[in-house]
Amino acid sequence: MSAAMVIAIDAMGGDHAPEMVIDGAALAHSRMPALRFQLFGDEARIQPLLARHPRLRDGVEMRHAAHAIAPTDKPSQALRKSAQSSMRLAIEAVRDGQAGAVVSAGNTGALMALARFVLKMQPGVDRPAMVSYFPTARGESALLDLGANVECDARNLVQFAILGAGFARSVLGVERPTVGLLNVGAEELKGHEEVRAAAQVLRESKFGFDFHGFVEGDDIGAGTVDVVVTDGFTGNAVLKATEGTAKLISSFLGLAFRRSWVSMLGYALAKPALDSLRAKLDPRHYNGALFLGLNGVVVKSHGGTDREGFASAISVAADMARGDFNERIHADLDVFDHRSPAPPDAPPVKAAS
Amino acid sequence: MSAAMVIAIDAMGGDHAPEMVIDGAALAHSRMPALRFQLFGDEARIQPLLARHPRLRDGVEMRHAAHAIAPTDKPSQALRKSAQSSMRLAIEAVRDGQAGAVVSAGNTGALMALARFVLKMQPGVDRPAMVSYFPTARGESALLDLGANVECDARNLVQFAILGAGFARSVLGVERPTVGLLNVGAEELKGHEEVRAAAQVLRESKFGFDFHGFVEGDDIGAGTVDVVVTDGFTGNAVLKATEGTAKLISSFLGLAFRRSWVSMLGYALAKPALDSLRAKLDPRHYNGALFLGLNGVVVKSHGGTDREGFASAISVAADMARGDFNERIHADLDVFDHRSPAPPDAPPVKAAS
Repeated sequence: MSAAMVIAIDAMGGDHAPEMVIDGAALAHSRMPALRFQLFGDEARIQPLLARHPRLRDGVEMRHAAHAIAPTDKPSQALRKSAQSSMRLAIEAVRDGQAGAVVSAGNTGALMALARFVLKMQPGVDRPAMVSYFPTARGESALLDLGANVECDARNLVQFAILGAGFARSVLGVERPTVGLLNVGAEELKGHEEVRAAAQVLRESKFGFDFHGFVEGDDIGAGTVDVVVTDGFTGNAVLKATEGTAKLISSFLGLAFRRSWVSMLGYALAKPALDSLRAKLDPRHYNGALFLGLNGVVVKSHGGTDREGFASAISVAADMARGDFNERIHADLDVFDHRSPAPPDAPPVKAAS
Repeated sequence: MSAAMVIAIDAMGGDHAPEMVIDGAALAHSRMPALRFQLFGDEARIQPLLARHPRLRDGVEMRHAAHAIAPTDKPSQALRKSAQSSMRLAIEAVRDGQAGAVVSAGNTGALMALARFVLKMQPGVDRPAMVSYFPTARGESALLDLGANVECDARNLVQFAILGAGFARSVLGVERPTVGLLNVGAEELKGHEEVRAAAQVLRESKFGFDFHGFVEGDDIGAGTVDVVVTDGFTGNAVLKATEGTAKLISSFLGLAFRRSWVSMLGYALAKPALDSLRAKLDPRHYNGALFLGLNGVVVKSHGGTDREGFASAISVAADMARGDFNERIHADLDVFDHRSPAPPDAPPVKAAS
């Protein structure tokens, strides 16, 4: 079978690994029976878990890994002691063409460092970016970078736009995505120098997506564009702030419904509708941040997720492995390279050259 | 009477000025009868509006202004043609000691430029910051900078912490506020160089507030600290993204309740409780962003607000004018100046010196 349909799984990553991971893989397999898994981890702990999922067993290849990266390991430590770790072996399966993608709920910094070390950057991309997608008033939109790079130059932002557009094609199913650059105002003169320089390149180049221009923070929820591009500092702050707002409103709502027996009755009547809303906004459905820009698909699941969330992360990995992500972004990276042949460490693109 | 109890009002600023402004002043006056107003604007348009509020008339001094700054004026244009404008005259009333604060719902960029030009920076503060406050799980917290400075160095961030703590004392009524620095992670090694350098100064200095350390985006809604400090680019993106999220959830909720007649009945029963929640989260209640760091209190009301929102902005201005904001932050600015005697344009503070 094609390696594209094989997902390498770090069975030892995450707060509730390996149990949650195996349960999540079983759930994903029940939904996508054509998927195959390579499970990397402690065989003695995993085999009994597999016994609970007889149907999954046929779709699984067990690969013993003697070590596991700890959640507290710094990326440098993880790199040094990674040789026989489940995380590293799973990434190597992608490098060696045995799997089309890797999924881990383990240590984010270690996963990024190992993935970058083992897979290397894709030609034409200077730095990896983290992307995920979110519900909006118009459907779903992607946001990147979510924290891989705290400082970004114009070149990085343009490449993130290309990568994000590729993600929107493969995972959101949008053939020609619209892309916006996050800024403090819609006027052309506002914002960082880097943001303005990136906007100029995006405006003047013929990429396989439509550059919408600048967007502001409230355009994310409004779904103004399919892809919102920003630096990793802002993207991480915005991502977590919106999660915090959703949590706050949800807790306020709970308090409001419990205020009197009449409002509790109201809640009981509206519960089916509210439950479907809750399902729509369920963060587990949006679990699975992708590292883009590497020679291989790497999906980071939230460490504290459950099987439902882990199955979502596997589904994102499968969408990416199946799609023609690389071929499609290749053309856009070529357009950009042709325009700006600067080496990776060159200063930001200032203007049309 | 003391000038502290006089609020200078730009009656011509805002989408629905001067009607909304006069109605808002009347509402604020009904709640705080000791307040006095100086109204700057077109007398011929304002006098008939005042006639509708007989009780307000005693508390008001009318000051004719021949011009109004347009919403589309760039700050530089606004400066040039501001001489007899309502916005400028209102700011000058603060400079001249006739009023304790100025409130305008007009052009933000123009207000910032004029306020900075007329009032000048407070000694010890390099750049003004915009601050506002928001509901959290634990009460209310302040966030700054909301967009006055897209790039900030460590010195700016430390000064924003001092200014934000002063705001929390005067407006939120917290005697010894806790202050957090927004970052991408709680570990000390993460984040921008500027953020880390600012954290070091905040950690090592004896200010009149407690430095909590780094916070992340979700700590804003959680109310982890009284004051969250960040640069204006991130602060603006976070502010608008959380507004967008609240709007999105609210619209999803509306759809959920309208899904069936049973859920509509549920809504009807829970309505009083939901209305009180809506009132709690009402953005009009949080209307009024302050420009901090100037020689005088300047409050920017949202341009599209109604009288309720404008009255909130007046209330913030009154809190600030009444409080001992300047005296209290003066001590902290002294501590910081003593520590780092660098001139305003010096490079960022790198470490303890």
